[in-house]
Amino acid sequence: MIPLDSAALGRRAEAMLEELAAISADPDRLVRLFLTPEHRRAGDLVAQWMREAGLEVSEDALGTLRGRMGQGPRLLLGSHIETVIDAGKYDGPLGVVAAILAVDTLLRAGAKPPAIELLAFGDEEGSRFPSTLSTSAAVAGAFDRKQLELKDAAGVSYAEALGAYGKNPDEIARAEIPRGEAAAYVEVHIEQGPVLESKSQPLGVVTAIVGQTRLVLNLTGEAGHAGTVPMNLRRDALAGAAEIALVAEKIAREGAGLVATVGMLEPYPGAMNIIPGRVRMSLDLRAAADEARRAAIRQFEEQARAIAKRRHLEIEIELIHELATTSCDAGLQDRLAAAIEATGRKPVRLASGAAHDGVMMAKLCPVAMLFVRCKGGVSHNPAEYASLEDMGLAIAALVRFIEKFEARP
Amino acid sequence: MIPLDSAALGRRAEAMLEELAAISADPDRLVRLFLTPEHRRAGDLVAQWMREAGLEVSEDALGTLRGRMGQGPRLLLGSHIETVIDAGKYDGPLGVVAAILAVDTLLRAGAKPPAIELLAFGDEEGSRFPSTLSTSAAVAGAFDRKQLELKDAAGVSYAEALGAYGKNPDEIARAEIPRGEAAAYVEVHIEQGPVLESKSQPLGVVTAIVGQTRLVLNLTGEAGHAGTVPMNLRRDALAGAAEIALVAEKIAREGAGLVATVGMLEPYPGAMNIIPGRVRMSLDLRAAADEARRAAIRQFEEQARAIAKRRHLEIEIELIHELATTSCDAGLQDRLAAAIEATGRKPVRLASGAAHDGVMMAKLCPVAMLFVRCKGGVSHNPAEYASLEDMGLAIAALVRFIEKFEARP
Repeated sequence: MIPLDSAALGRRAEAMLEELAAISADPDRLVRLFLTPEHRRAGDLVAQWMREAGLEVSEDALGTLRGRMGQGPRLLLGSHIETVIDAGKYDGPLGVVAAILAVDTLLRAGAKPPAIELLAFGDEEGSRFPSTLSTSAAVAGAFDRKQLELKDAAGVSYAEALGAYGKNPDEIARAEIPRGEAAAYVEVHIEQGPVLESKSQPLGVVTAIVGQTRLVLNLTGEAGHAGTVPMNLRRDALAGAAEIALVAEKIAREGAGLVATVGMLEPYPGAMNIIPGRVRMSLDLRAAADEARRAAIRQFEEQARAIAKRRHLEIEIELIHELATTSCDAGLQDRLAAAIEATGRKPVRLASGAAHDGVMMAKLCPVAMLFVRCKGGVSHNPAEYASLEDMGLAIAALVRFIEKFEARP
Repeated sequence: MIPLDSAALGRRAEAMLEELAAISADPDRLVRLFLTPEHRRAGDLVAQWMREAGLEVSEDALGTLRGRMGQGPRLLLGSHIETVIDAGKYDGPLGVVAAILAVDTLLRAGAKPPAIELLAFGDEEGSRFPSTLSTSAAVAGAFDRKQLELKDAAGVSYAEALGAYGKNPDEIARAEIPRGEAAAYVEVHIEQGPVLESKSQPLGVVTAIVGQTRLVLNLTGEAGHAGTVPMNLRRDALAGAAEIALVAEKIAREGAGLVATVGMLEPYPGAMNIIPGRVRMSLDLRAAADEARRAAIRQFEEQARAIAKRRHLEIEIELIHELATTSCDAGLQDRLAAAIEATGRKPVRLASGAAHDGVMMAKLCPVAMLFVRCKGGVSHNPAEYASLEDMGLAIAALVRFIEKFEARP
């Protein structure tokens, strides 16, 4: 094991993140969208850092920066460099910077790391086009060409944006890594939740990227005068919606690794003196295991329908979105945990409630993620924060992980 | 008792209501606001009907049409002739038409009714100015002169509108009926609720015009990512609001003569994938007895605060509006019930959940109301409907009531 100064690594990471955060389409807030001049500038900076670390840099047909070293089946490391609108500076860039600093540290120390490819993706957030994870999909050979027709808010298509970025959509297939050449994909990312903070631990090992079901419910009762309709003659859609929202909460609280959120709830007409005749509400339910998620959804739908029936409400339940669970590789998890222990910290095992490029990379090879504590669990917000200490420890753990990594034949 | 043909009375009422409904500011929907040209035309038509029935007509300083007969303490009968925007044709005008037809029927039959004054008010709905019941308030000597400064949607003040209507605000005080000269106030009105329909009875006797408390609650928790915050670390303002809404429903269901409505509930930010950090919601609670209403509000506030505390939410409860109960006179109720029985129907006793001019008239004399079944409980809507049969029975009952009425000395 090479000697490591995690405090110094944290300081270097922070300086690089600051430099990236200065690249924004808006001087007052951080906005760096896919295939924009800001994406170009950030890509150029990352390419320069990769070269300085000793990697051979190329850029694929979707603008993903790729830095390679060594031969044979390779360890893939990376994250994304584009951001949401009004972003923080850690979500995405930290994973790219951590990988660069880990490789740089190993090579400078004269270590002999395994074959490695760094990946700096450009379309994880889906902030410009209504696409998801398209740049990692291309690397995994799972790019959906229908996405080329998607348009951004200004009416520019994905294909047109690629052209303006100097890319040829016909070359997307060449971004794919052949199956036998990808040994594993490992990503460092801020947690975006409060679990590590609540356990007072800087680092976590992700067990799975949770699957997700999103429903929209329409409840219809009967609007009426808030004064003149007795309680026993009411068909109050909001009272039914309230009961259903609490059912969702109860199911999630009683299940293991489940979260359920009613984020949208709109009563009509929404006036103080009118019994709501109609409510539109959402359910977002996520679980680390697909069977647990499906069972919870069945239970929820059954109870929601029973509540509607008892209250003489009509109910329509619409499936809006569904995403299967991505399990993280058990062996990689154990090796990440051992690497965290090598920094003197306790690894916390936790699921990722947000999606990441690992969802696509899992189609190519085993995946794993190292989570870094972030303040208050806040992300997608300028207040997003990870400490220099925690980032330094994450990079140190990643170095320890790479040192022990051996690509399975 | 004079002979009565209630079917014929119903037909006459319907024809008069049609004639009034044709007077609208909008050719496509019924809109007849206070102190407008439509109010003028409706007032002129009502005055003509009053005269044809044998009454001596005057108009007070707020445009209320007043038709008198006889000497001494008088029975006051009436309702309002202005409407909400996009109104039905029964809410208000039915009470005026019923009173005119009752008097007309009695005088044509050669009966000797007691002294009577018919009142056709013009500001019950508060649809033009944010005033309430101002025309009956003037008759009861309770007009609040601050209302003269209120402005309508076009910026015209109440005082200016009076001037344009040819009225002098200095003469409002002269609209008051001296206390000893008002024996009782009785109003016929559609129920605006489903109780009579659910009991298959055409007519009801109002026990009280309910008191009302309106609250706005602000709940503050913590917004968060729907995927990354575990259930036990959430401070979900919407889940708390749902529990509070169900508490309101439970209290009202368990109490006697209580109704509670959460009509407005707004989660922020209201996105499907974000835990609501804040909710603004309303409570409208009404009861036929003030003590029951106050007790229910205390109970609600206590339980809402307990829920907020358990869920680590901040809660603010703001009192928006409070109106005391107006009790209907027990003797008048009994005499209205007897009059309904004289038509061969069973009187249903019920509270009025909506406010009426009786709230103001009760400051002057004992009040009572006769409710007429309306289809589906619908009002303030073009679909508002009372059948010819039910209206005919209501007028017949009013005739029977007047026949037996003797002003207490």
